[in-house]
This record gives sequence, structure tokens and C-alpha cells, in this order.
Amino acid sequence: MTKTSKTGLFISFEGIDGSGKSTQCRRLAAALEAKGHEVVLTREPGGSAGAEEIRALVLQGDPDRWSAETEILLFTAARRDHLERTILPALAAGKVVVCDRFADSTRMYQGLSRGDLRGTVDQLHSLMIGREPDLTVLIDMDPEEGLSRALSRQGVEERFESFGADLQKQMRAGFLSLAEEFADRFRIIDGARDMDAVAADVLATAEAALAEA
Amino acid sequence: MTKTSKTGLFISFEGIDGSGKSTQCRRLAAALEAKGHEVVLTREPGGSAGAEEIRALVLQGDPDRWSAETEILLFTAARRDHLERTILPALAAGKVVVCDRFADSTRMYQGLSRGDLRGTVDQLHSLMIGREPDLTVLIDMDPEEGLSRALSRQGVEERFESFGADLQKQMRAGFLSLAEEFADRFRIIDGARDMDAVAADVLATAEAALAEA
Repeated sequence: MTKTSKTGLFISFEGIDGSGKSTQCRRLAAALEAKGHEVVLTREPGGSAGAEEIRALVLQGDPDRWSAETEILLFTAARRDHLERTILPALAAGKVVVCDRFADSTRMYQGLSRGDLRGTVDQLHSLMIGREPDLTVLIDMDPEEGLSRALSRQGVEERFESFGADLQKQMRAGFLSLAEEFADRFRIIDGARDMDAVAADVLATAEAALAEA
Repeated sequence: MTKTSKTGLFISFEGIDGSGKSTQCRRLAAALEAKGHEVVLTREPGGSAGAEEIRALVLQGDPDRWSAETEILLFTAARRDHLERTILPALAAGKVVVCDRFADSTRMYQGLSRGDLRGTVDQLHSLMIGREPDLTVLIDMDPEEGLSRALSRQGVEERFESFGADLQKQMRAGFLSLAEEFADRFRIIDGARDMDAVAADVLATAEAALAEA
């Protein structure tokens, strides 16, 4: 096991709302730091000053405020800024980037739930982003359990949480399907367990990827 | 000459800063309304509620705030919103849309001045916008004259005006080159004349296009 990471590693977390992925992101970042890694903990949409402003434009207000296509463009603009200003500089400095959601969330939420625009999402990604995470941790969970966790939280950014249980089931299936499609970088972690057990699995998965990097 | 337009017509204005195109947009809109046409006068970036918010993000603040690529994505998001919410509904209702700048400005400013990204601009346009104006009026003018006009104006949105005379010369050449490339819809109007003479030429050009529509 390395004491400090020699090369950067880009780890993203995906999963349905309420799956606990944000908590697991924070825990992984803390655990890796405790082991001597330099870690940048970030999130999407957002993660850089400009991207956070775009995030506010996208997530606040009337759900019909933007068409699916405009929303995809705004998410891609935010992702480009995040990648240029936060992720790539950190990786170049040999740091571990732990990112709460990345392009797979757009493939899921905008690609499947808002008009079957997966082809458009993929073309935009290929043209303007290109980069994929080295490791994507999917925190998998039964949607009923995830939904009850999500509803117990508070906040103004509730657009994506307001879609309900049926959509959450589609999302779970969609994430599992992405995990098959990108099997080389996806690792599925069962999130319906004690948080410490989940965190231990996540850390072991990340350390395995770091050892290979 | 028709008293009311039976089909919509999409007219864009292009030209270097200070060419007088915004004034000519307003004059054309007023002249067409006086002749009984229903006219929607709009502008880019902006032209719809969401697009105006994106415009504010792009045009205000530090010039290095966004990379060329992120800026192109934001302009494309604004254009998509503007097209969906303002331009296409007006055209569907048989109105004349008079638009101060459209995609040709992005081809010029982002495609040429910020890193030779014309190919990226074109691919994004093809993927997310598709639509071109029916008629594009290029108000052509010597950059020295245009610049002195632009510098005499005031306002906070000065980023694109701050590039100076050499770039304005490149821009003029670039717009003339676009006029060749899209010769079917571009009409070049000599803007270095009395404003009334320019306005009369613009109106005649628009009426010719309306007669063909």
C-alpha cells in the first residue's frame, strides 16, 4: 500500500437519490486522507466556481424552466468547467479526486428520464468532455429504501428527488445497466447495509484501484 | 407587397461591433410593423428569460472566467432556449423574427478568435440547434470606423468590445468569409453610409426575402 499516491486517480460515485453516496464520498475522502493521500472531494453539478453558478441556474426554479436539451447543454458546460478548473489540475498534481456524480448521472437522468436523449448526451460528452473516471463506485440500493432516505432530507434542490418511486426504480435499473456497459471502471457496492460496512467495501475498492494506478 | 406575412421569416443581423446593426435591427422591425407585419425583435445571447440569465453569466466578470469551450457550450444552451421559447413559436405564428446576432456570431467570435474552434462550434450547432436564419443581413463596415463608434458607447458588457482594432479587422474578414460560405442566405449591406440609406437597403432586402417566403 502506498503512503502517498504517485499518480492521480479519478473516482466518481453514482447511485439513486438516498443511496448514501454523498456520505460515502465524504467517508472515502477522509479515509484516504488518513492514509496519506492528497484528496480533492468534489461534486456535480458544480465543483468549481463557474460550475456552481451554472448548477444554481439548472437546479433552482420551475422544473419546466429548461428543456431537456438545454439542460444537457448547461450540465455539459458545468462539467467542462469543473473538469478544467478542478479535476484535471488535481489529477496532474497526483491527487485523488473523489466526485459525487459525474457524466453517468447525465447519461441516466437526462439520457433516460427526459426524452430518451442518451444519443445526444453521448455525442456531447464525446465532443466536449471526453474524460471518464478511472473508477466509478455505484452505491446500489432498493429504491423504496432510498426514497425514504431522500424524503427525510431537506433543501431547495428537490427537483430530481420529486420524481417518485417508479422513476427511482428505472434509475436503479439504469445505473445497473451502465455498470454493465462500462464494466471496466464500474464497481457495484451494496448500499443497503450498515454504513460502516459499506464504507469498508468502498475503501477496499478504491485502494485496489490505487494499487493498479 | 403583402400587408401581413403569411409565413414566418427568420432574419438575423451580423457585423462587427459598432457597425450599427442593433440600430438597423430596431429600424427594420419598426418599418416592417408599419407595413402591417407582426414582428418579434430579439437578440443573442439572450432573447428569452433563461437565455438572458445565461447571457449574464457569460458576458459579465473576468474575461478568463470561462474557457473558450465552456463559453461555446453556454452560448449554445442560451441559443437552444431562445430558439425553443422565442424564435420557433413566433415563426410558427407567422411572425417575422428580427434577431441581433445568431449562430454566425458564435462561428466568428468563438470559432475564430478563441482558439480556432470552428469545427467544435459547427458540430455543436448541428447537434443541438440545426436551424439557420432564412436571411442574414451583414452590416459591413471598416473596422476603424466601427471601433470608434463602439468605444463611444457605454455599458458593462464590454468584453467583446475590448479586443481592439486588429481583431476587429479579422472579424470583418471573417464575417465576409461567412457571407461567401452561406451565400444563399447572407446579404451584405454597406454600413459606412448615412443611417437612413442603410435602413432603406435593409428594408428592401427584407421585403425581397418576404416576397419569396
